[in-house]
Amino acid sequence: MHLTHLECTACGLHHEARRLLNLCLRCGKPLFAKYDLARAAQTMTPEALRTRRADMWRYREVLPVERDENIVSLGEGWTPLVHARRLGAKLGMGELYIKDESLNPTQSFKARGMSTAVSMAMELGAQRLAVPSAGNAAGALAAYAARAGFEAFIFMPQDTPRANVIECVEMGARVTLVEGLITDCAAEIARRKEQEGWFEVSTLKEPYRVEGKKTMGYELAEQFDWQLPDAIIYPTGGGTGLIGMWKAFDEMEAMGLIDGKRPRMIVVQAAGCAPIVRAFEQGEDHAAEFPNAATIASGLRVPRAIGDFLILSAVRSSGGTAIAVTDEEMTDAVREIGATEGIFAAPEGAACLPALRKLLDRGVISKDERVVIFNTGAGVKYLECFAR
Amino acid sequence: MHLTHLECTACGLHHEARRLLNLCLRCGKPLFAKYDLARAAQTMTPEALRTRRADMWRYREVLPVERDENIVSLGEGWTPLVHARRLGAKLGMGELYIKDESLNPTQSFKARGMSTAVSMAMELGAQRLAVPSAGNAAGALAAYAARAGFEAFIFMPQDTPRANVIECVEMGARVTLVEGLITDCAAEIARRKEQEGWFEVSTLKEPYRVEGKKTMGYELAEQFDWQLPDAIIYPTGGGTGLIGMWKAFDEMEAMGLIDGKRPRMIVVQAAGCAPIVRAFEQGEDHAAEFPNAATIASGLRVPRAIGDFLILSAVRSSGGTAIAVTDEEMTDAVREIGATEGIFAAPEGAACLPALRKLLDRGVISKDERVVIFNTGAGVKYLECFAR
Repeated sequence: MHLTHLECTACGLHHEARRLLNLCLRCGKPLFAKYDLARAAQTMTPEALRTRRADMWRYREVLPVERDENIVSLGEGWTPLVHARRLGAKLGMGELYIKDESLNPTQSFKARGMSTAVSMAMELGAQRLAVPSAGNAAGALAAYAARAGFEAFIFMPQDTPRANVIECVEMGARVTLVEGLITDCAAEIARRKEQEGWFEVSTLKEPYRVEGKKTMGYELAEQFDWQLPDAIIYPTGGGTGLIGMWKAFDEMEAMGLIDGKRPRMIVVQAAGCAPIVRAFEQGEDHAAEFPNAATIASGLRVPRAIGDFLILSAVRSSGGTAIAVTDEEMTDAVREIGATEGIFAAPEGAACLPALRKLLDRGVISKDERVVIFNTGAGVKYLECFAR
Repeated sequence: MHLTHLECTACGLHHEARRLLNLCLRCGKPLFAKYDLARAAQTMTPEALRTRRADMWRYREVLPVERDENIVSLGEGWTPLVHARRLGAKLGMGELYIKDESLNPTQSFKARGMSTAVSMAMELGAQRLAVPSAGNAAGALAAYAARAGFEAFIFMPQDTPRANVIECVEMGARVTLVEGLITDCAAEIARRKEQEGWFEVSTLKEPYRVEGKKTMGYELAEQFDWQLPDAIIYPTGGGTGLIGMWKAFDEMEAMGLIDGKRPRMIVVQAAGCAPIVRAFEQGEDHAAEFPNAATIASGLRVPRAIGDFLILSAVRSSGGTAIAVTDEEMTDAVREIGATEGIFAAPEGAACLPALRKLLDRGVISKDERVVIFNTGAGVKYLECFAR
């Protein structure tokens, strides 16, 4: 449609769009898809959107696939933005919302990114896809690869929640459990991918998963009638969701859909794996690998993220912050969110609640602000965390 | 809105709508909500629906809640109707669809019914809700009760999948595990409910869960541009989903949204618990209790259903049939659907596939027909079934 080229997020080098690429060919950093936004804006108007399909492909003009028949979809996106009145009341807030990503295919926000990545693999001719995953990305790739008729090669840490392993197997993926962390899984793929003929769809190591995830930003804007909230609290492992939303905001402003006002972007990480929090506090532009990463929130067990500089830049530009919470705070929050709002959140999503409480206490967020917390996935996939 | 009264499905006795009721006060059979459909049709037009919210409350005129502020919602309904091209091709079919109910809150179609039941409890003043459940209804009640600020008292068989038990606990419900089947759970509630002050929201034992579930019928019609499919294959435990869709079809015809053509309604049950199949084959109007009910598809382990006569009547009027499949066929089908379409189905939903194969073989369904199979829930909640 309106995709024009790929641009390196670090050195700015342009790359041809209609080619299977991973990282910048010059500097090895992530590539962003760029669009002719003026043309996209002609048809993707608030009025036109009102009658469109209830999934993320409603934003067709700013998604990278050229031909409709290459879209690999299971109904991802356009998830509920739940007004959390009872939980808000406990905190003295009238405008607290939960974006509930557990209503995606495979029960997590990872579906969005894999829908675009696998669609682009379809369009550009890759059929053997490999991914390292802390859990939910694995299930999502397994699903979209199966839907496309492709092969999925999935590498997860040995102690990934059982639900993630089983869903991959039941959807026909080839699963390898690796002793170590997601970074070790990535190393294993790097070692073998050339020989095996795999195309790697590791997040931000190919340009299109972030395009799917950015639709969370479009949806927030549209669901709030094109007024972004005051703050977004986002559980951050690889950080592609946050990076994607930040990209979406720029695109929407260029298209005239929103003004220049931005939410404060607030990163939540686990105390046992908080590389971004540490880098933010130390004023670094990049985040060093976090040693001995450990947390029950498997999606936050990402000791090193290739998009670290993009996360830190968005957080700082927005006037946001980064904060860590403990595993115990997360499991307590799962129950609190569950019992007040009826959403059985993933521990990653639940992490937003103790973070919010701390930021209210510190005056970083005020009670009359409009705040969105992201429940990135379904708690039911993390039975191991709730065996008490 | 347009709710006029409740009517007994067996003896036809009218009951006042604005009153907390369970079964017919004369004959003890299920009650149906009745509407002023002529008035509803004035505003609920295909044109008007195009810009409505992407959940089941888009059908506001034919849902029972009077005041909007009583609606207890988590974004249920308006689930994807997935064109199963690859699975269809394996069967020689061009028009096979999967209605994927796993994209509901709490990952199953049970969310629909509990959303209306809890909304009506809110409107009519019940705050302590009890339910017997084979699994997914429990999680759904826990969620909607929490969202409403009500107490949920849940009775499940001891060997219900762990995911169902944990989700209820994490959402603050009071869970009792009962040695026996769902019928034993119901008996326990019947024994205690008066003393405890519980309102029972057992399916079809209160009039409103079926109202939520009927929206599956409205959605099918709207998603197919107001042309119903040739056949619907539906995994049937209590049968409220099928009964609800059948009710929806009548309402839609009365409103002029569809013509008189109906899909053949096809019941699928487990070989280890097939009371409806047995009654259908024996030409009975009611289904006797199925002895020693046993199946891994916990939602199909319903040895006796209060709506049996309604299920059998819909199946027969539609020219449909009833068929049983084995547990092994179900688990094989989970993997086949997963690997071809990327949907990790519940065993209940997967049961539709072997049923479809048999009906194609027997010529009951022909390959050029448009057929919808219902995936009623997410496979990820049934980890016990996939431990191989």
